[in-house]
Amino acid sequence: MWWQREDLNYQNHRLCFSGRNVEALASQLPTPSFIYSGKRIVNNLERLKGALNRHGFKNQHTIYYAMKANRFMPILTLLKTSGLCGVDVCSPSEVDMARACGFECEDISYTGVSLSKTDFDRLSKHPNIVINCDSLYSIEQWGRLKLGTEIGIRINPDIGISRTHNNKLKYSGNMPSKFGIYREQFHQALALASSHQLKVVRIHFHAGCGYLTAELRQLEEILTASLWFIKQLPDLQWINIGGGLGVPHSESDQLLDLDAWAQTIQQVYGELSNIKLAIEPGEYIVKDAGLLLLEITFCEHKQDTLFMGVNAGFNIAPEPAFYDMPFLPVPLHETSIKQRINIVGNINEALDVWYQNIDFPAIDDQQHIALINAGAYSSSMASNHCMRGSFSEYLLL
Amino acid sequence: MWWQREDLNYQNHRLCFSGRNVEALASQLPTPSFIYSGKRIVNNLERLKGALNRHGFKNQHTIYYAMKANRFMPILTLLKTSGLCGVDVCSPSEVDMARACGFECEDISYTGVSLSKTDFDRLSKHPNIVINCDSLYSIEQWGRLKLGTEIGIRINPDIGISRTHNNKLKYSGNMPSKFGIYREQFHQALALASSHQLKVVRIHFHAGCGYLTAELRQLEEILTASLWFIKQLPDLQWINIGGGLGVPHSESDQLLDLDAWAQTIQQVYGELSNIKLAIEPGEYIVKDAGLLLLEITFCEHKQDTLFMGVNAGFNIAPEPAFYDMPFLPVPLHETSIKQRINIVGNINEALDVWYQNIDFPAIDDQQHIALINAGAYSSSMASNHCMRGSFSEYLLL
Repeated sequence: MWWQREDLNYQNHRLCFSGRNVEALASQLPTPSFIYSGKRIVNNLERLKGALNRHGFKNQHTIYYAMKANRFMPILTLLKTSGLCGVDVCSPSEVDMARACGFECEDISYTGVSLSKTDFDRLSKHPNIVINCDSLYSIEQWGRLKLGTEIGIRINPDIGISRTHNNKLKYSGNMPSKFGIYREQFHQALALASSHQLKVVRIHFHAGCGYLTAELRQLEEILTASLWFIKQLPDLQWINIGGGLGVPHSESDQLLDLDAWAQTIQQVYGELSNIKLAIEPGEYIVKDAGLLLLEITFCEHKQDTLFMGVNAGFNIAPEPAFYDMPFLPVPLHETSIKQRINIVGNINEALDVWYQNIDFPAIDDQQHIALINAGAYSSSMASNHCMRGSFSEYLLL
Repeated sequence: MWWQREDLNYQNHRLCFSGRNVEALASQLPTPSFIYSGKRIVNNLERLKGALNRHGFKNQHTIYYAMKANRFMPILTLLKTSGLCGVDVCSPSEVDMARACGFECEDISYTGVSLSKTDFDRLSKHPNIVINCDSLYSIEQWGRLKLGTEIGIRINPDIGISRTHNNKLKYSGNMPSKFGIYREQFHQALALASSHQLKVVRIHFHAGCGYLTAELRQLEEILTASLWFIKQLPDLQWINIGGGLGVPHSESDQLLDLDAWAQTIQQVYGELSNIKLAIEPGEYIVKDAGLLLLEITFCEHKQDTLFMGVNAGFNIAPEPAFYDMPFLPVPLHETSIKQRINIVGNINEALDVWYQNIDFPAIDDQQHIALINAGAYSSSMASNHCMRGSFSEYLLL
């Protein structure tokens, strides 16, 4: 099967994840539970850093993990102790959470949107945080607060990465979005920064979500578009190209080639001197490091369709239902006898379907299933809809 | 403006809601805040009961408020003390919450899906709850638990109400769904009930969401389809037609005509003797009884589009973003000078847009806006995404 890898595969027909037999885990842990592999998380980070080191950014880059993807505190502390990354945050409470898990102000990069007066007040208590302003009014606010002499600016290159039909995941391009400062307002932004004696030492942008190798040409276009802005920043020290690095969802997806990715960046920025690179991966670090373990509740026909029910619904992992990007369900015990089924959750809503039309083992002797690639934008976006919001999380080390 | 009514309108250009000046409220309350009108909630219930009383169901009906729409505890207790309704629940924790707010077991109707063993254990502590089984395995489980001699069955009439293009809100029809027992399995369900000495005294179904007068012909079709099932139930006492009664979202929507609605039900079921009617409205009771009060954070151009930012995002009220059914933003202070704007939230996601292209007053002297029709499926589905999940709720009495 396409998704199998060294730390996630079948051994003697039993699903193994991060060195554990998942059936044995299921017998010990309550469900629903998210199980995260610490080794995979660190390995994902190391692979990214390796590619950047090989292609011109050795000691010239910083990875900020986008904690909105998953803020389970043990994961955050693992990331801090790994020494491999800082953390990308987008709200004052995320700053507090990052600090709670061991990150220092200097490790934290803040890129928010629509900050309120209360937000600015809260952030002003952490003057050493790295701040990227996404709008004229936020430059104005930072200038007034006089927290430092350096800022970053989030720009909008007006080109987006579109991997699928899913415009909901597109951050720029098409029509104006709320994100960043466009060319039309850029000179005004620089004048505003200058009037507050602020040096613009960082530029930031983010163009889409979940890109793979096939989308690298689009990434190159965006990076190229950023040069117009970059050339107007004499004090620039850092280019932050945001996140968006994806992992495969299905057999037809081609894994993101990290060497090709790093080369794409090097080709566009290689001529710039004394510039360091920052990236903000979230999904890429944690998505394929998480399983969602569920108990099977029933299996019966509705008309001529076989349904398998499980003991959790889309509210604890909303991305599959809302973006039509289902997590792949896999059996803990692989068998050759399969039936075509729909896997559904326990929420009274029509969209609460985990997977439609999948060939899956008959469940006579099985009590659980696992959904793979469930480590990102799941627990962090969970709700208590229908008061079905209880779940547990476990970090395997 | 189409949405104005006796308890929600402008007086001297100031927005008034439930007898209060909303600007005055905004100066006292933190934001984001949901403000609910207790009078409107009770009035919505009374209007429903009035229509049922006028059209053949006087003392022959029960309203079960669907608490998944909004479980703010003061609202639940207000509903209980009104004496106008019971409560419709769909999880064991909702049973506990209903009990916590004053409802007795006899007031509670349970219609769940994909119940786990743990769910059955928890429910078995409340033997007097009204239970509707939605599948063969749940009839089997209730039979084994021997909690009583009567059950309800949730059937699937295989016809759905489709108000818009929005298939995500369609509960039956098209292709088999997880909800209810279809014709194909109905005889098996009756045999199973009989084998456990269970009398089927209630029938239940739910066909869609948000229907208005234009969809009453579809409702009639569904009610008519239910007769096939009803005729096979000699012990039937109650017909529960679920929820789905809607409120207008835009000027072009026609208010649900409750007399026409009650007549539709009477026409189909009028000949049946000794049958009582149950309904499970959620949205209809609370949606138009709730405002979401937000603070304006900024107003500036991105390219040639004017954006207004507010201090909360789609995560505290997910329905507008995910179902493309935006809440209408209204100014607290009505002025004649208007600009076309996009209203956006504070979440770093492209879909976090409250409203696109609306003519709205320039905000120079205004600090807040209100979103109307925000009382249902908002706070009950809220998440802490980006740790922007804080909000307050207030019941006006």
